[in-house]
Amino acid sequence: MRTTVGWQALGTAHGLRRARLERRELRADDLAVRVDYCGVCHTDLHAVESRDGAADPPLVPGHEFTGVVTATGDGVTRFAVGDPVAVGNIVDSCGECAMCLAGQENFCHAFPTLTYGGTDRQDGSATLGAFSREYVVRDRFAYPLPAGLDPAAAAPLLCAGITVWEPLRALGVSPGTRVAVAGLGGLGHLAVKFAVALGAETTVLSRSSDKADDARRLGAQGFVVSNDPEQMAGARDRFDVVIDTISAPHPLGPYLGLVAMDGTLSHLGHLGPVTVETMDLLVGRKKLSSAGSGGRPATAAMLEFCAAHGITADVEVLPSARVNEALDRLRRNEAHYRFVLDMSDLD
Amino acid sequence: MRTTVGWQALGTAHGLRRARLERRELRADDLAVRVDYCGVCHTDLHAVESRDGAADPPLVPGHEFTGVVTATGDGVTRFAVGDPVAVGNIVDSCGECAMCLAGQENFCHAFPTLTYGGTDRQDGSATLGAFSREYVVRDRFAYPLPAGLDPAAAAPLLCAGITVWEPLRALGVSPGTRVAVAGLGGLGHLAVKFAVALGAETTVLSRSSDKADDARRLGAQGFVVSNDPEQMAGARDRFDVVIDTISAPHPLGPYLGLVAMDGTLSHLGHLGPVTVETMDLLVGRKKLSSAGSGGRPATAAMLEFCAAHGITADVEVLPSARVNEALDRLRRNEAHYRFVLDMSDLD
Repeated sequence: MRTTVGWQALGTAHGLRRARLERRELRADDLAVRVDYCGVCHTDLHAVESRDGAADPPLVPGHEFTGVVTATGDGVTRFAVGDPVAVGNIVDSCGECAMCLAGQENFCHAFPTLTYGGTDRQDGSATLGAFSREYVVRDRFAYPLPAGLDPAAAAPLLCAGITVWEPLRALGVSPGTRVAVAGLGGLGHLAVKFAVALGAETTVLSRSSDKADDARRLGAQGFVVSNDPEQMAGARDRFDVVIDTISAPHPLGPYLGLVAMDGTLSHLGHLGPVTVETMDLLVGRKKLSSAGSGGRPATAAMLEFCAAHGITADVEVLPSARVNEALDRLRRNEAHYRFVLDMSDLD
Repeated sequence: MRTTVGWQALGTAHGLRRARLERRELRADDLAVRVDYCGVCHTDLHAVESRDGAADPPLVPGHEFTGVVTATGDGVTRFAVGDPVAVGNIVDSCGECAMCLAGQENFCHAFPTLTYGGTDRQDGSATLGAFSREYVVRDRFAYPLPAGLDPAAAAPLLCAGITVWEPLRALGVSPGTRVAVAGLGGLGHLAVKFAVALGAETTVLSRSSDKADDARRLGAQGFVVSNDPEQMAGARDRFDVVIDTISAPHPLGPYLGLVAMDGTLSHLGHLGPVTVETMDLLVGRKKLSSAGSGGRPATAAMLEFCAAHGITADVEVLPSARVNEALDRLRRNEAHYRFVLDMSDLD
């Protein structure tokens, strides 16, 4: 086995601790990647918080990272040592089902192998995430990091970015589409950048006017305070697409009310059950949708789009030793807009 | 006031009774219509069953009917005495909001006036439905009944028909679209006829195989028994559009599972809140939608389509005096596929 170091949760209440980790020896189609930067996602926070206790298997979070190839398996032809790469939250899939064949490995019928908390399809081992200095990944699930993208600010593209990119593209967002983005966090600020770059008329929905300046800076033309009934009434039926990135459970009715006839509310920020009034969908033949992560072709296309438009996340980079502080501040919604851990302090 | 007779609910448990009813004198844009046939809809059953007691205002159900114009207001130019007409569940709307201006009076921001249980926009009176021998309606909300359509079998087109027609058209159903229809009742059997006539590959989803022969007779190529896990698993991700016409509350997860990537489950048969697992939408970027009733242009287009393709409902016609029997049998799901009341016994 290869060894590396990373940040691991063992119990519940103790946060993450530095630990020695094992990685598999390279298979023919594997890359070893020196992890330079890894974003901190709400999913990481949920994973840490939802641990039951010391009996749980070790948890190493982290599933949106950039780095450099340090070794390649015998069969690897697409990558060479020294190549900058990016990896997201999926590291394998069955490769045979209709979804995989359609390039939507994120919807693999046999369920994709997640970057952490998953089970390796060959040896049955538990996957450990990228809050660590090295990751070993099948070459199919690594993406060349385009030149010109800052590797720290690009890391969040691999989860937050692709999660908003896929629905924007699937819903046909293009010049003139009226898009609203609810929640201006890690997902939301990238949704605004993408929508603006795609030519959409873009509006930010936020609980207060605190983020109005930021919304404008990100390129949004409109801003609606969602706690202001008058502003919400004025925005009724106004948007072809509403991208809901709010990470806490919340009623969907007010946001469906903003969707134009035959438009779509894409509910991305929160997993778990949602309840809607049929009438909120019926009146205006509105649609509720969701999305998450992305397939290989869409991920590669998103990275090319980002390179062409100079899009990366707005990040605050912290040494990885401050991972627990990053999680605490994320819990308090203090990210502007994504914490990224710099793993060089693990050397 | 004009007077007519009809079937009225006064208390709760006594069913409908024959009663003398008043209709308004004709305004300039009104038609008096001799009601010949009126369909019996689940909504009628709910309206009768949800009465609280004798204190409720009188209820006369009925909102999908055909008949003949017997008198016209001074300003009416589109209709003449003797014209066969059809009327649905909307008899007025504000005419000024964005939805009305777009020809979607069913989504009128000021709420459309319903054929019964509504409030007239001019005199504030309660609207009384078409389980009666005469109805007075604003000419904008009457539709010429195309020649060649049997007036008894055409009556259900005006509610059941338009309710499935609008989503099929809005979702782009056309030759090659893979459509499944869940629930083979009043709405469902018309959805099958429309989907087949639109060129879709059409499958019926039903709890048992009892309706397989009927499904084939209606033109469906496929049939899936929804209580058979193996058949449901085999139909996974298979349909671009699933039209859910099941009238009782039911879990949506199994039906979302049948929707293909980027496809839509249109939930039509049951109003009230619905709960879905976000993951059931997320995996495959599926959409949940709804629809109900229709606008004036779509209603007219549907009637023309029905005339061109010879489509009417499969009906069992009963003398209107058997209205309570019709409601009882509808409650027991014994309609094949729509009861229609013949009002000539009211003369």
